[in-house]
Amino acid sequence: MKTLGQQARDSSRLLTCIDTDTKNRALIAIANEIRTAVKILKKENACDLELGKNRGLNETLLDRLELTDNCIELMTKSLEQVAGLPDPVGEISNMCYRPSGIQVGRMRVPLGVIGVIYESRPNVTADAAGLCLKSGNSVILRGGSEAMKSNQAIVQCIHRGLLQVELPITMVQFVETTDRSAVRQLIGMPDYVDVIIPRGGKGLIKHIINNSRVPVIKHLDGVCHIYIEESADLGMAEEIAFNSKCHRYGVCNAMETLLVDRSIAHKILPILGRRYADAGVELRGCEQTKELLIHINKATREDWDTEYLAPILSIRVVNGIETAMEHIHQHGSGHTETIVTKAYAQARRFMAEVDSSSVIVNASTLFADGFEYGLGAEIGISTNKLHARGPVGLEGLTSQKWIVLGNGQVRT
Amino acid sequence: MKTLGQQARDSSRLLTCIDTDTKNRALIAIANEIRTAVKILKKENACDLELGKNRGLNETLLDRLELTDNCIELMTKSLEQVAGLPDPVGEISNMCYRPSGIQVGRMRVPLGVIGVIYESRPNVTADAAGLCLKSGNSVILRGGSEAMKSNQAIVQCIHRGLLQVELPITMVQFVETTDRSAVRQLIGMPDYVDVIIPRGGKGLIKHIINNSRVPVIKHLDGVCHIYIEESADLGMAEEIAFNSKCHRYGVCNAMETLLVDRSIAHKILPILGRRYADAGVELRGCEQTKELLIHINKATREDWDTEYLAPILSIRVVNGIETAMEHIHQHGSGHTETIVTKAYAQARRFMAEVDSSSVIVNASTLFADGFEYGLGAEIGISTNKLHARGPVGLEGLTSQKWIVLGNGQVRT
Repeated sequence: MKTLGQQARDSSRLLTCIDTDTKNRALIAIANEIRTAVKILKKENACDLELGKNRGLNETLLDRLELTDNCIELMTKSLEQVAGLPDPVGEISNMCYRPSGIQVGRMRVPLGVIGVIYESRPNVTADAAGLCLKSGNSVILRGGSEAMKSNQAIVQCIHRGLLQVELPITMVQFVETTDRSAVRQLIGMPDYVDVIIPRGGKGLIKHIINNSRVPVIKHLDGVCHIYIEESADLGMAEEIAFNSKCHRYGVCNAMETLLVDRSIAHKILPILGRRYADAGVELRGCEQTKELLIHINKATREDWDTEYLAPILSIRVVNGIETAMEHIHQHGSGHTETIVTKAYAQARRFMAEVDSSSVIVNASTLFADGFEYGLGAEIGISTNKLHARGPVGLEGLTSQKWIVLGNGQVRT
Repeated sequence: MKTLGQQARDSSRLLTCIDTDTKNRALIAIANEIRTAVKILKKENACDLELGKNRGLNETLLDRLELTDNCIELMTKSLEQVAGLPDPVGEISNMCYRPSGIQVGRMRVPLGVIGVIYESRPNVTADAAGLCLKSGNSVILRGGSEAMKSNQAIVQCIHRGLLQVELPITMVQFVETTDRSAVRQLIGMPDYVDVIIPRGGKGLIKHIINNSRVPVIKHLDGVCHIYIEESADLGMAEEIAFNSKCHRYGVCNAMETLLVDRSIAHKILPILGRRYADAGVELRGCEQTKELLIHINKATREDWDTEYLAPILSIRVVNGIETAMEHIHQHGSGHTETIVTKAYAQARRFMAEVDSSSVIVNASTLFADGFEYGLGAEIGISTNKLHARGPVGLEGLTSQKWIVLGNGQVRT
């Protein structure tokens, strides 16, 4: 693993000097290699799937593991899209003269070496490699053992693409062993790895946070809230609340708890209750919610802290914005919260005081997404406060160093 | 310690809603309280100094510990200066419309709760409290045991200042115990503390990096280099190299290793050698340097990795910019490096490829400083790559969350 680390560090130094055009040609070459290799990819993926079935993986995991034609096409499209994004490396900002006569500004530079640790989904292999390459970083990929053959086949395409433009294949390295100690080593090499990005279940991420000696850009959980404020347009509130829960259940930016102001609960909850029931969403409510929606279950203390990622929704009637924000502070995960309101003062307060990576007024929580925000691509959604917060695109994979231009200045 | 943490968390929520004017009035009030308390501060400081002498603290430490009139005046000036800086909190940037019709931008917000762990210097108490207050953060201060009475007296001034503008004193809390376990607890409470800033010796900082479960903004060491390139103006190179070493020896941005291009070594090293000798700087050189400066010691392998913080300088003659940058990569600490050159291409390359928090062309390394860069104040110089890099001012104590303004948008 140290060898991988040293090679990654060496190639990351090379990467800082490579021009945008070469990086873009590499991305296109990789996409073409993947297109050419569809048959092989599907064959290797079939081996993984069969092994998975024999090992008794559940349907969801097998579904994530499968490389369909569509999934492969999306991988290539995503690489081409990253090639089309502006190169963040070298961007200089805020250059200005200081009284001493020096010019000071900041230059955006790659982080260096990124370790990506992920589970099942093989498309992460191509996505992560593409984003790291474009942002000038070397990457060490550590995929799930259940996708080993699929990942290896994708990595071969990546390496062939790199070779076509004469880039060293050590820019994208893949940990071939399924040995668990590999993860421990990867997160224990701060001299070789600058940041770890885990993608997967909460168990994996918590393990990494608790044990990593390398900084982690983590996406822990998304217990997202919508607060329907007293003045809200009820039609708008209904659409936003329904969309945020029911558009897709398994995504981190889906709403998990609905907070409804007491003064309008009797108007909106019966309507929403019917729509959720029709969609097959199980509702769990506080006492007051249960008075309005009598057939639903009572929410337990645990419900307020739960990211269901499923057709389940907890609902609480609250007495004003203070109580709503207090609930979000107590139970939220700092991911994404929406207020639906017509009141300027309440919108302004919610935006200033709610401490989440995305704070939204009058729109679905599902907009908390790199593509919707215009990042072009995303390697994850960070619930960190330091460095990247919320959807992480190319910029989150870079840092800014200071540059100073002088003509002989010394300190006096 | 958990109680401190909970109180800090609670007051940090309050701080996000407090307007700039109140924060500024608090800073001015604290400065005035310190001015009024000069006698008490000096009395308490005298107790610390006496205890320190009895414990056998060395001169340097006693010097750092002492609160002179000048030192107290600087503390108050620094607080007033922070009051005059623009408030970073609430600043919204890059707000733009997306195709979906939502407006997306980023809002700068406080990090939350900051833990500052520092040694001897009591002025850090006022400086750190001022910067945290202005940036909307609660702070938990953990000073060195040798400055306990001085720190307590300063904290009392801070609390009186906060009370004058009716702010809760839990915004600035001080750990009263000298028990070492307090540090362990402080760096083990990620639920209550958002970031740890250690200020002090390398031992303290390494201990914290290796044991903290809270993210650390660290300043590890400054093994800073100057590379005098072949085309350099020799007069300019001489002044910059002399200033960067000799202006002050104990600072992290002082030069520790001088790299001189082989083609000009015979011209500049004899001149510089004399100036350093006159200033009492001990030189340690590579073989080629020793041929030009015959009376100096030979640099050992260890010298290249050493932050002397003293009148000692290591010198190496290198063959071109590649070798210079390779040396910096191998032995530097990623803090600050200067190139002296007249060649455009070499300046451009050095800026792009050297991976340090400050990269300087034709100016002293000593410009790597928050005040010189226009930050107005600095809480430290970060050698992290993630989040704040280089001098850390108010902006480094904040993060950016995404804000979204819609009028009913849902995902389709």
